[in-house]
Amino acid sequence: MKQYEMFELTFTGEPPQGSEADADVEALFTCGDVEQKVKGFYAGNGTYKVRYLPRRCGSYTWKVYGAVSGEGCEECVKGEGHGLVQAEEYHFRYEDGTAYVPFGTTIYALAHQEEALIRETMESLKSAPFNKVRHCIFPKSYEYNHNDPKYYPFRKDGSGKWDVSRPDYRFWDAFEKVVFELGEMDIQTDLILFHPYDRWGFATMSMEENETYLRYALRRLSAVPYIWWSMANEYDLCFTKTLEDWARIEEIIKEEDIYGHLLSNHYCMKFYDYTRENLTHCSMQNVLFYKADQWMKQFNKPIIYDECCYEGNIQFSWGNISAAEMVHRFWCAYCTGAFATHGETYLSEDDALWWSKGGKLKGQSPAKIAFLRGIIESLPSALEPWMEPEHLLYGPDFNDKGKDGENPFVKLHASMTEMEDDAGALKDKLFTGHCGKEAFIKYYGIHCPGRGYMILPEKRTYKVEVIDTWNETRETVMENAKGIVWFDMPGKEKMAVLATAE
Amino acid sequence: MKQYEMFELTFTGEPPQGSEADADVEALFTCGDVEQKVKGFYAGNGTYKVRYLPRRCGSYTWKVYGAVSGEGCEECVKGEGHGLVQAEEYHFRYEDGTAYVPFGTTIYALAHQEEALIRETMESLKSAPFNKVRHCIFPKSYEYNHNDPKYYPFRKDGSGKWDVSRPDYRFWDAFEKVVFELGEMDIQTDLILFHPYDRWGFATMSMEENETYLRYALRRLSAVPYIWWSMANEYDLCFTKTLEDWARIEEIIKEEDIYGHLLSNHYCMKFYDYTRENLTHCSMQNVLFYKADQWMKQFNKPIIYDECCYEGNIQFSWGNISAAEMVHRFWCAYCTGAFATHGETYLSEDDALWWSKGGKLKGQSPAKIAFLRGIIESLPSALEPWMEPEHLLYGPDFNDKGKDGENPFVKLHASMTEMEDDAGALKDKLFTGHCGKEAFIKYYGIHCPGRGYMILPEKRTYKVEVIDTWNETRETVMENAKGIVWFDMPGKEKMAVLATAE
Repeated sequence: MKQYEMFELTFTGEPPQGSEADADVEALFTCGDVEQKVKGFYAGNGTYKVRYLPRRCGSYTWKVYGAVSGEGCEECVKGEGHGLVQAEEYHFRYEDGTAYVPFGTTIYALAHQEEALIRETMESLKSAPFNKVRHCIFPKSYEYNHNDPKYYPFRKDGSGKWDVSRPDYRFWDAFEKVVFELGEMDIQTDLILFHPYDRWGFATMSMEENETYLRYALRRLSAVPYIWWSMANEYDLCFTKTLEDWARIEEIIKEEDIYGHLLSNHYCMKFYDYTRENLTHCSMQNVLFYKADQWMKQFNKPIIYDECCYEGNIQFSWGNISAAEMVHRFWCAYCTGAFATHGETYLSEDDALWWSKGGKLKGQSPAKIAFLRGIIESLPSALEPWMEPEHLLYGPDFNDKGKDGENPFVKLHASMTEMEDDAGALKDKLFTGHCGKEAFIKYYGIHCPGRGYMILPEKRTYKVEVIDTWNETRETVMENAKGIVWFDMPGKEKMAVLATAE
Repeated sequence: MKQYEMFELTFTGEPPQGSEADADVEALFTCGDVEQKVKGFYAGNGTYKVRYLPRRCGSYTWKVYGAVSGEGCEECVKGEGHGLVQAEEYHFRYEDGTAYVPFGTTIYALAHQEEALIRETMESLKSAPFNKVRHCIFPKSYEYNHNDPKYYPFRKDGSGKWDVSRPDYRFWDAFEKVVFELGEMDIQTDLILFHPYDRWGFATMSMEENETYLRYALRRLSAVPYIWWSMANEYDLCFTKTLEDWARIEEIIKEEDIYGHLLSNHYCMKFYDYTRENLTHCSMQNVLFYKADQWMKQFNKPIIYDECCYEGNIQFSWGNISAAEMVHRFWCAYCTGAFATHGETYLSEDDALWWSKGGKLKGQSPAKIAFLRGIIESLPSALEPWMEPEHLLYGPDFNDKGKDGENPFVKLHASMTEMEDDAGALKDKLFTGHCGKEAFIKYYGIHCPGRGYMILPEKRTYKVEVIDTWNETRETVMENAKGIVWFDMPGKEKMAVLATAE
């Protein structure tokens, strides 16, 4: 038994009499004065399994009871893992304190492809900058997704209807293998539990069926340290499920997952209620990067732009942005302390679009995202949104202070609607973040100044670098900088400036 | 006297006893059964003038009375002008029906520069694609605008305070000359009556002074056919003026302008109330081009994005977008039937930034805007927003129709907030317009499809062209196209497709 690594017990017994998905197996793990109960599951072929994730070192005893039984003890020693990724304020970190900044990609139907394609995907991921993959348990039916998977999560009953009480163990074994393999590469699985793109009937199961499925999936997978729960891809297009159903799904997850994995619900058009306590972060679909700051405060959670369009050239607007635009969107997100997720949708003869099937990465954005990742991970701490104190620099040159002596700008801002605020931000706002007083970053995006400035603290000195985010260059333009500093910029798009304390 | 051309009568008399700005001169023009009264003005040096804009041909009699008097008759014949530009639904046209699509630029302090620079500006405009210039009566004080003008609109009293009752005629003569010269080049003056960027005190005059100034200005300028009233540049930063003051300014303009010139009020951050009846169009400052359609319906007026940032490289975000971005913004606006205004802010050694002083155009966007103008003006009628019927093309491939049988997409859309609607549009919406069934245009902006489609009427045939908006190329990719048509696209940014009926 190793800390932060899944521990598995296997037993042989008679197959369950009733539902195979809800086998009567429970286990009690005890370490010192801490007791934890977990449910086991039937794994097919007369095999029962109990999985447990030990999170502290020490002497454990375990006791299994129900359809199969046994007991034993284990010494849990330090392993190589860092535990779960957890949310902390607006950021993430491993539970042992190790830094973790999500740089995700999207391969929705990754596990439903032929083995050869999965192999190719894993090879691609080895040299890609991604440490999270969004993918689905259920297969996907959509444009460019017309192939049937080899296995399905359940077997069918005599009438040809899915019988959720009879898992197809071949499916689950194969699916887990993909998750485990990603984990071996330090890649988190952002596991999508439901989605609407379905022609088989998984999207329209009853809530009773959903519950059976969920409990089985979670008993198998909760002890996997590198897994996040994404209740849905695009919950708002799952028309059969009501908001009450989603609340119930949250509760089922909380009941089965004793570890508290990250949990969110991704939307297409209509925000899920990210104030809900069970949700650990906001898994969004939009490109309003200038609102990250506002949303962090509103939801008090990290913001991941899990769908901000995909690099590619298909006919749909969500799947045909350039590599440069994708990289731009990443910089917008990360420089304000938020996160984004990559995807790729280039037309290809074999119909294997990365976003859904994996295969080879064809685009130019991953290399540039790697460059960004290197910079972000070299910072002394997590970036937080920074409001550069521009009022120190200049004010409009007018003598009109209004009639009543109150600060007219404050009054004006207070009168503005959300749309007016957003319009102003979309027009002029840069993407700025800081790590306390250790580092300040500013991403200019489409703005092309010939002169740049940074408004830095007066009491420290900084090295100032101008970064070409696309050409992957960093040039030191100032040292010993403090206070308001000015420097030349190349007057072109997609530049950033980083000031780090000396 | 010529139709649509300013007619001017000049009289000599004793200077006014009281306010020189409110001379006691009135005129009655009669043509058939139509009588129109206009006020004259004192032009300095013992000279009074009455100006009148005849809008129909025929026999006129006129009678002037007050400080000076006289009467006469004139035969008004057809001239070369087309009359005022007027708003019609969401578009503009000359009052004689001639097409007019505004392609404006911004030279705020055009008339306050040295003559040599004004000459250079006029030369630049001769080969530029612009047919409207936003510029100010009052001089401007701001970054890159530190020079004093040669003349001011008023003289000062003994205590050194501006005396609005004593116009400086040298100013008005010089100012008008600029307006007239623009008009000779078929360039409309979008005349800014107030603005906040002031160090002389013009921005903080009392409403009584404002009224005196306005009435004088309008008596001089209302008969100029190629003039629009822009009550302010950035009214919301004119802190001394209240909304009631702006309403009063509207009323004064309506009283003095018997012709009904175009009238709007430009804002910085806080929308002016564009539902107000006196306003003929929306003079906006934002880059929310996807909202043009909504705003047209909401305000029932044409939408001009009069400030959508400037091509340049200064330190301010509003003044450092690339030529490509400026051209992109123009295409976004025009393809949905809205309009945009150019400006240029390149750092230069002589400190002459086009946006404020004029001079030479240094940027690359004017040539590309000329290309766009050529296309827009070649269309059979004004573009209106087009909602391409994409539901005919595809629907998500899912079998989940919800529990209650109502169209779940309709319900979902109905539940969305304005922010959610905007977020969806910002992510995926293209810029699409049509001229009835005669022409359809789609601008892809940052989207890079390798395959394009157009969903055209079934009962006509169309020529389909793929347009590279930056490289100024047009390639016919289909003829005899009807219904849903697909064609190859180059998979790069800033492309458009135009289908014109054969």
